[in-house]
Amino acid sequence: MNSQNDMNKESWVHYISMTPPSLSDNAADVDRLTAQLKQRLNVRFIDMDRSIMVSVPAVLRKSNFNVRCVLFGFDHQYQLIDIQPSNDCLPVYGLAIDLGTTRVVFRLLDLITQSAVIETTIDNPQCDIAPDVLARIHYTDQADGLFHLQQRIIHAINQQIQHICTTLCIRATQIMCVSIAGNTCMTHLLLGLPPQAIIREPYIPVINRQLLLPANELGVDINPRARIFIFPNIGSYFGGDLISGILALDMYQQTEISIMVDVGTNAEVVLGNKDWMIACAGAAGPALESGVSKIGMTAGPGAIERIQPDNQSFIWQTIENKKPVGICGSGFIDLAAVLFQSGKLDIRGKLVPDKCKDRMLYIDNIAHFLVVPGETSATGKNLTISQVDIDSLIRSKAAMYTILTTITQSVGIRLTDISTFYVAGTFGAYIDPSSAITIGMIPDLPLQRYQSVGNTSLAGATRVLLSRKDIEAVSDIQKHITYLELNVNQEFMNRFSAAKFLPHTDTTLFPTVNVPSI
Amino acid sequence: MNSQNDMNKESWVHYISMTPPSLSDNAADVDRLTAQLKQRLNVRFIDMDRSIMVSVPAVLRKSNFNVRCVLFGFDHQYQLIDIQPSNDCLPVYGLAIDLGTTRVVFRLLDLITQSAVIETTIDNPQCDIAPDVLARIHYTDQADGLFHLQQRIIHAINQQIQHICTTLCIRATQIMCVSIAGNTCMTHLLLGLPPQAIIREPYIPVINRQLLLPANELGVDINPRARIFIFPNIGSYFGGDLISGILALDMYQQTEISIMVDVGTNAEVVLGNKDWMIACAGAAGPALESGVSKIGMTAGPGAIERIQPDNQSFIWQTIENKKPVGICGSGFIDLAAVLFQSGKLDIRGKLVPDKCKDRMLYIDNIAHFLVVPGETSATGKNLTISQVDIDSLIRSKAAMYTILTTITQSVGIRLTDISTFYVAGTFGAYIDPSSAITIGMIPDLPLQRYQSVGNTSLAGATRVLLSRKDIEAVSDIQKHITYLELNVNQEFMNRFSAAKFLPHTDTTLFPTVNVPSI
Repeated sequence: MNSQNDMNKESWVHYISMTPPSLSDNAADVDRLTAQLKQRLNVRFIDMDRSIMVSVPAVLRKSNFNVRCVLFGFDHQYQLIDIQPSNDCLPVYGLAIDLGTTRVVFRLLDLITQSAVIETTIDNPQCDIAPDVLARIHYTDQADGLFHLQQRIIHAINQQIQHICTTLCIRATQIMCVSIAGNTCMTHLLLGLPPQAIIREPYIPVINRQLLLPANELGVDINPRARIFIFPNIGSYFGGDLISGILALDMYQQTEISIMVDVGTNAEVVLGNKDWMIACAGAAGPALESGVSKIGMTAGPGAIERIQPDNQSFIWQTIENKKPVGICGSGFIDLAAVLFQSGKLDIRGKLVPDKCKDRMLYIDNIAHFLVVPGETSATGKNLTISQVDIDSLIRSKAAMYTILTTITQSVGIRLTDISTFYVAGTFGAYIDPSSAITIGMIPDLPLQRYQSVGNTSLAGATRVLLSRKDIEAVSDIQKHITYLELNVNQEFMNRFSAAKFLPHTDTTLFPTVNVPSI
Repeated sequence: MNSQNDMNKESWVHYISMTPPSLSDNAADVDRLTAQLKQRLNVRFIDMDRSIMVSVPAVLRKSNFNVRCVLFGFDHQYQLIDIQPSNDCLPVYGLAIDLGTTRVVFRLLDLITQSAVIETTIDNPQCDIAPDVLARIHYTDQADGLFHLQQRIIHAINQQIQHICTTLCIRATQIMCVSIAGNTCMTHLLLGLPPQAIIREPYIPVINRQLLLPANELGVDINPRARIFIFPNIGSYFGGDLISGILALDMYQQTEISIMVDVGTNAEVVLGNKDWMIACAGAAGPALESGVSKIGMTAGPGAIERIQPDNQSFIWQTIENKKPVGICGSGFIDLAAVLFQSGKLDIRGKLVPDKCKDRMLYIDNIAHFLVVPGETSATGKNLTISQVDIDSLIRSKAAMYTILTTITQSVGIRLTDISTFYVAGTFGAYIDPSSAITIGMIPDLPLQRYQSVGNTSLAGATRVLLSRKDIEAVSDIQKHITYLELNVNQEFMNRFSAAKFLPHTDTTLFPTVNVPSI
């Protein structure tokens, strides 16, 4: 028992030994139990459903007042979810969910060993109805549209929970708590909250603050007393997935200044340290998600994800080493860097015919660069990137750099003051920082300051299931963040125009980048 | 609107005007609303069900951000129950319930005008299954016994709510909050909590602390978001009905010492002031509830409720002036006082044949006193009180006086230090203090110190529906009270023996009582 008592005080599982009642110590059963729990957790109040109160007397007496309790909650909202005799109880689990627009990732955690048991991914089934945030919100204008979208995601979550439980031979009732981190829109759709005002000026969510909901109230089929923690949002364009990321990276605890950038159609940026934190989000354009160019694609088998210079040409590498079918964001950034360094793109981002030579083609009167000839591609057709695609990438990278400049200048620091530059998100995991620096998308910092951090949304959702300290940090983080509205004013446009060059009009900002003379 | 805004800040109904959102003030709808409410109520947190969140955006926009909110809760547990446009909303109600073992009293309150709308009483339908606390708890040993008892009371509450709503032409969904004050056992049965340990040493309830439950969770058919407040208990024999009474009488706010006595099968006593409070409960015997004597009855039409001396005889008065059918507790106390003062009872409480003369009969060899001859009674039979009945009354009154002596001595005060003596409960409403003093049941205080206070349980339940300050006082009162275990030791028995005389062995304790010489 001692080793159990010594387990992490921040855990949600607590072994409690009580003195049985007597005439001189006649506290009621539930009050006796919660007094111990309140002391252990040092909190003022512990709540529980009536269904658990009903079972308390029998469990206490059966166990001779030695019980294992599972709790979950934050601040003033602690819920006692399960009570079992200490010497006769099953493992208990928590489920962390990264609720992405495109993909939903599940990680089951053993709450006692505090380790991950399984991780699975599904496509967000709402994609079949509407691919992106905007389309989904428009879909809710239809009768029952919101209900339909909500039911789809909840049904998919339940299916996946069933699948996980079958795989591991456990019961869904052993899952005691769930944490869900998603962007503002995905969170609204999950909760069945009308999202229409999110995309209409002045861009107002129904709710930003965090929630703790009974699982059965949301229709999630786990322990009926389980609670679901929903990460809070900062606003319409800065959601719980990012707050979860800030938690996962401990940005709010660091003395040095760090920045987290999540790049997609929107660039979401948060900058700060333990004393202050500022966030903003801006349209980065679809080029980085490769939604524009004909051969652009999201990362998947056969996507060119990496391009490196090779003499006067380059070599490419595809995901799973399949024959190339297209190019994904990280590959496109690499390609632009390689083309620029070899003089095939000029500082304005225009293809240079003299340098591209036979790699340059005209299709419908538009200049194209031949990335992979048809004889090598999976499709048998030429894989080309057009000047239009490149212009789009240039705008995206300029937008990103402008946003980074704007947010740092708003708090009076230089980009070089940033100690750690976290590149988050699935896309961020594949970007080569040196290529991104070469095209002037991100600042010219020493490469070791860049960290690709993968799925920080899932990592943060995991943290709150393992530690009370972490779940309580969430609302602090949310309150701590100042959201900077990006005003697209003249100053912003001037910065944007200067950033549309490769790497930048002011080349002194990129001292390590060699600007080839053409 | 001003008059509405000026309404009692302690009320549960609040009219809120918000500035509509803008780009520079983009708080989420729910957060905008709760920020205002938190400021108005000066609380840290306001919770709400998801079902209300869903409706918030539309109501805010429809009302141009002027809404009427109904809240309920305490301390950290405030619930937003209803939100409507300020200029277009229905009346809202609260329902106070005194959950008695025998009778259940309902009082519907208009939460806006803060006035009572209707009051109704039903028999507790659990009586049909088992008449008293003990029998009901034994009944729960049967399979489904507890469930059966719980369903009976909830069904009866729902029926009565339906009846009230039909009578007043209102909808049950307009009832936003309910408060229920009952003794510890009735509260357990209502909640479906196993009550067996209440009556078995060491007498442990499942829970003492107050609760706030969703109405639909308990199956009460009112507004599905409504909350039900359950008064806390002190222990197995001192329940929420008494805490409600302490609240209603403001005992916990007074500088002077007061005492509240609720007399029934048990005598429940609480003594104190704003600085301290002590409570105890003890068996007073069934005589005071008139459950023993053949003609004893609870107060009802035809019960002799009052007896006054008239020359060497006495005159009686019945409830509703019906022909007499029996005698209820208050009448029995009056009778004993009259008999004692006229010398027909001696100081040991024995009938004196020389004085009773032809009023004295022997039935089965036991002395009886003829209260009403058969020609006058409703039954056509003599209404008599036996020596056994009188002995039982003497034991009851002695127990009461001993309990009062014990509790005052435990805190080092004299009975004469009590400024106000509240006699609570339906029975208390009818006791004539001067008769009770004459037989030595209650201390010989100036009569103006006695106050009959009626149904204080219902009064307290009403208070919490009208005032946040009052609902928050409840847990303070509960924590404030020290419960005194009555140890039936030698000292207690000595006191009890001394109190079995009329009015007492020590007649100096009853200076105003004339002890007739026989």
